[in-house]
Amino acid sequence: MHKLDEILREIKSRKRKTVVLAGAHDVEGLKALKKAMEENLVDAILVGPKEGESSARELKLEAEYFKVEDPEKIADLTVKLVREGKAQILMKGLIKTSVLLKAVLDKETGLRTGEVLSHVAVVEAPALDRLILVTDGGMIIKPTLEQKVSIIKNAVKVAKMIGIEMPRVACIAAVETVNPDMPETMEAAILAKMNQRGQIKDCIVDGPLGLDNAINMMAAKVKKVEGEVAGRADILLVPDIHSGNFLGKAAVYLAGGRIAGVVVGARAPIVIVSRADSADSKLCSLGLASLLA
Amino acid sequence: MHKLDEILREIKSRKRKTVVLAGAHDVEGLKALKKAMEENLVDAILVGPKEGESSARELKLEAEYFKVEDPEKIADLTVKLVREGKAQILMKGLIKTSVLLKAVLDKETGLRTGEVLSHVAVVEAPALDRLILVTDGGMIIKPTLEQKVSIIKNAVKVAKMIGIEMPRVACIAAVETVNPDMPETMEAAILAKMNQRGQIKDCIVDGPLGLDNAINMMAAKVKKVEGEVAGRADILLVPDIHSGNFLGKAAVYLAGGRIAGVVVGARAPIVIVSRADSADSKLCSLGLASLLA
Repeated sequence: MHKLDEILREIKSRKRKTVVLAGAHDVEGLKALKKAMEENLVDAILVGPKEGESSARELKLEAEYFKVEDPEKIADLTVKLVREGKAQILMKGLIKTSVLLKAVLDKETGLRTGEVLSHVAVVEAPALDRLILVTDGGMIIKPTLEQKVSIIKNAVKVAKMIGIEMPRVACIAAVETVNPDMPETMEAAILAKMNQRGQIKDCIVDGPLGLDNAINMMAAKVKKVEGEVAGRADILLVPDIHSGNFLGKAAVYLAGGRIAGVVVGARAPIVIVSRADSADSKLCSLGLASLLA
Repeated sequence: MHKLDEILREIKSRKRKTVVLAGAHDVEGLKALKKAMEENLVDAILVGPKEGESSARELKLEAEYFKVEDPEKIADLTVKLVREGKAQILMKGLIKTSVLLKAVLDKETGLRTGEVLSHVAVVEAPALDRLILVTDGGMIIKPTLEQKVSIIKNAVKVAKMIGIEMPRVACIAAVETVNPDMPETMEAAILAKMNQRGQIKDCIVDGPLGLDNAINMMAAKVKKVEGEVAGRADILLVPDIHSGNFLGKAAVYLAGGRIAGVVVGARAPIVIVSRADSADSKLCSLGLASLLA
């Protein structure tokens, strides 16, 4: 798929998945769900304190409302509804991320899969001829090498769901050469070798690469950066949360593009939208989560 | 100035400055200079081994050529030409950056000012209504707090030259709240207070801010991020070289925008273009350097 609209169209043609909103006394979250329901993207279940019910009613949002006051209990019920198959997507409403994730990660009653939880952003921008995934700009602050391996695995699964059979993963840095003063360039080299030795499967990993020579073939050619990833990366592995965050936001606030984001690695995708995200971005994130559910 | 073209127009109306190219056996660098000379932006002096002279001649580049073989001596002569007032801008050709900078930073014969050398990128992107400065995405790998103060000072000087009287500086991070697990958010808070106490002058500093609420007023309002910088930042201080590098390159490779970059902090601006930079970007960088010279 080359545009986020293709994801939304695809989702509309499928059986609707159900989103459970944790902390449903969240007018912005309710509005985003309402819009997604109007667009025939998803159904919804709401879990939150009773004041949220009237907000949902005012918005004419047709969804079952579970009245729960305590944040921990909201999180537990949300996760339980997913375990029971009543919902396939979690969405964070007015609840602390840490409280929601504690329930998700509970060893007995949670939704663990063995992988880390990581954030994947799908970016559409005017200068790109395809969708590009950026990870992790939203969950793990500064991943270790082991976490980077898991982050890649998670992103590869997302890439496959949007039709990229053998994703090309670029471990990006400020430069495309190994520099001992830049640890991310060394880890990039290590990850590329791990991929070559079969320790990271189902994708082609290379790095270090610059952003330019990772995604732009002309830039790769001019700099004579070779390999199967240079110039045609599908997934950009960034060194840390802030650099990935800037990159995703640049797609919107510099490029006027679009972005969809989802947290993966649990048994169900988790949508954590920010209040500042546009209505469009929230819709795209719910669409992406539906595709993954 | 709201567009890079305004800088180029302004430069064409002024007396031309002279660029000295260090390591002039650099066909890409010679081409960039040739173009800038054709556009009436700059004059040039060339310093490099003798094989560069024939390249310059083939390009019909009219400039004095100093034949020097040894890289250290190329760097020394380049710096000397600037000290003597024969050139006002340094440009890196085929010479290691470290060799050139060693001559620039020499305590007796160099071009030190007491400030650190830092990279400033001036970004023009379709979703921006103004030029925005990003620093430091090209020189200091991971600045200390003290270096960040110098980096801000350097960028403020550049901002003034492009007509921003009292630049608004956003210390950006993945989030706009202080998070002890994200050192850059704490340093952002410290820098804001140092500015308030008069320890960083001639600008208004705030942070931590997200990229969105730093440059976009709507995003700042939705998130209720207040202050004199939110939504209207002129300068983005990034935590490290890779995040700034991604942001600058995103302006070009995601947004289809333009970027000009220059190293400041020495007595003369230094242009360090990459081979992968477009001809346009090299031209804009030379234009920006002329404005600062």
